[in-house]
Amino acid sequence: MVHPMTEASPAISFEEIRDLIRKLPGPDLEAGTAARLRETQLTKPAGALGRLEDIAYWVACWQGRHPPDMRHPRVAIFAGNHGVAKARGVSAYPVDVTAQMVTNFQNGGAAVNQLCRIADSDLRVYELDLENPTDDFTRGPAMSDEACLQAMAYGMMAVEPGLHLICLGEMGIGNTTSAAAICTAIFGGSAADWVGPGTGVDAEGIERKIRAVEDGIEVNRPFMKDPLDVLRCLGGLELAAICGAIIAARLARTPVLLDGFACTAAASVLWAMDRKAIDHCLMAHVSAEPGHQKLLDRLGRDAILNLGMRLGEGSGAALAINVVRAAVDCHTGMATFAEAGVSGPARAERTPT
Amino acid sequence: MVHPMTEASPAISFEEIRDLIRKLPGPDLEAGTAARLRETQLTKPAGALGRLEDIAYWVACWQGRHPPDMRHPRVAIFAGNHGVAKARGVSAYPVDVTAQMVTNFQNGGAAVNQLCRIADSDLRVYELDLENPTDDFTRGPAMSDEACLQAMAYGMMAVEPGLHLICLGEMGIGNTTSAAAICTAIFGGSAADWVGPGTGVDAEGIERKIRAVEDGIEVNRPFMKDPLDVLRCLGGLELAAICGAIIAARLARTPVLLDGFACTAAASVLWAMDRKAIDHCLMAHVSAEPGHQKLLDRLGRDAILNLGMRLGEGSGAALAINVVRAAVDCHTGMATFAEAGVSGPARAERTPT
Repeated sequence: MVHPMTEASPAISFEEIRDLIRKLPGPDLEAGTAARLRETQLTKPAGALGRLEDIAYWVACWQGRHPPDMRHPRVAIFAGNHGVAKARGVSAYPVDVTAQMVTNFQNGGAAVNQLCRIADSDLRVYELDLENPTDDFTRGPAMSDEACLQAMAYGMMAVEPGLHLICLGEMGIGNTTSAAAICTAIFGGSAADWVGPGTGVDAEGIERKIRAVEDGIEVNRPFMKDPLDVLRCLGGLELAAICGAIIAARLARTPVLLDGFACTAAASVLWAMDRKAIDHCLMAHVSAEPGHQKLLDRLGRDAILNLGMRLGEGSGAALAINVVRAAVDCHTGMATFAEAGVSGPARAERTPT
Repeated sequence: MVHPMTEASPAISFEEIRDLIRKLPGPDLEAGTAARLRETQLTKPAGALGRLEDIAYWVACWQGRHPPDMRHPRVAIFAGNHGVAKARGVSAYPVDVTAQMVTNFQNGGAAVNQLCRIADSDLRVYELDLENPTDDFTRGPAMSDEACLQAMAYGMMAVEPGLHLICLGEMGIGNTTSAAAICTAIFGGSAADWVGPGTGVDAEGIERKIRAVEDGIEVNRPFMKDPLDVLRCLGGLELAAICGAIIAARLARTPVLLDGFACTAAASVLWAMDRKAIDHCLMAHVSAEPGHQKLLDRLGRDAILNLGMRLGEGSGAALAINVVRAAVDCHTGMATFAEAGVSGPARAERTPT
């Protein structure tokens, strides 16, 4: 289940990534139109399934087929370590916990294991060189070009053919600090606007996180010319891999569920490059980490679930799988008014057309 | 799957129901304490599963055992017809649709069938004498004492031993008008505060609903001395059955998920009799029917899901089953820090106690 990143040199360049993003395929509006048409015939008042109807339409558009299908979802967790965690004490937990939790995922003991079982979902864990954390971003770029590109290419490989949905999640002690730094660089505002308690640091810990973000922005300013530079300078290997997976999912016509704050911060790098680059991604939930709601507001997106979760490891996305499946299965499995012999609205009977 | 109500005379009196409600068992705080203790040991930051942690505690308290269990949920749909529907044209659909939808449930063609399959839930449909609607409540009480008690007793029978959760839902053309009338009688305000589009009536239809509620309140005022009178005068057979099922679930230590507006309006009758009478019920979702959020506010409750659904037939409750299961399965299935060899928060390591 755990896939370590190989040492192979990256097969992709930043210029190729920019080019991919410029040429991303759009939604399949023919499949979407077929979905809208069928929706009107199902045995329920128009609109009565609310957001589920929109999700069924969205899945059809981004799978590029009607009827849509949700039999084979996958949860992909990317794990990476952050130099800033040890250097600046930004997490309540020691950095060893990243690797310990990967073992916990392997052994079936984490929250996401239980959630994947309920969602009848495949789970894959991608380990990004945990022995070699990124550099401390308060002293310079977190990653070399090569490291960032290698992680992105590795994330792309996680998207195999035949998946009906991919849920992206992360594990990385210190990565809410990295996420807050990315948000500050992309959306502006002060570091304090984007920093929160993460795994549960106290007020002093939050101060340390704020100073780390401020220092990281200041030190890396000369290097950050575009959003991919922000990812390289302030991000982490697991966040770069998530960006790669989002791009590959678009090309593979696999809809995406994004988990919480760190995951959405990674996605915002692509959004900053092209406002449509993450249209094939839904926000699974809004995290209790306060930066997440602000980030969703900036992206103009509503989350599916709002349950005060803030665990990461793909947990919110795994929990939302069955909502997406409900949308698809209601859409494909319900009888039409004609099939079921159920009368339509009374007005339609009075004024036949 | 469909269980028609028998003609047997009721085995219970209103006085016995009042007595049951006075003596309802409370939560099992011993099971709850065991749940809180285990929660602190699981491999996640404290509180990181948010509302799922509260739900696991709640299930333990109301099942009266630790660990809690969620293998056998049931969705119970009660179907009844309303005299006010035909008499006052308060629905967008003809009254025949109630029976047609029961057939649709039997044949697996409704939304709730798909949702039960995803939730791995049993589904039962309880038909309450569809050939004999309640009387038009704008001309007097909707039900006789006997009819109301028979429906309540019938609802009680739906709660069989061995269920880990029961989801209550309804099907009844016209019942959002009945629900609005119940809310107006119990909580006050004007009829317009509680009336909404239901299955999708237009502005004129809403005016008809408002006038029907106003007339119903006015005509029945002399008969409504306590909340059970409100149920009998303005409710419906399916809503009375839901009240019975809620009481029986409490006695059977079966936690309850309530569906939307009509279902919650029925529950509010019990809440009006005793503020703790529905503590073993969670609000599965908040409906798009505007009265529902107002009703949840009055009851001081937050819904689990908010997806703009307004279908009834237990659909919102069925969709929420997997959230409750996620809460229970994370609670019971996750490894503890000790089992997984995962380090706790760094501060705890620095200051051993």
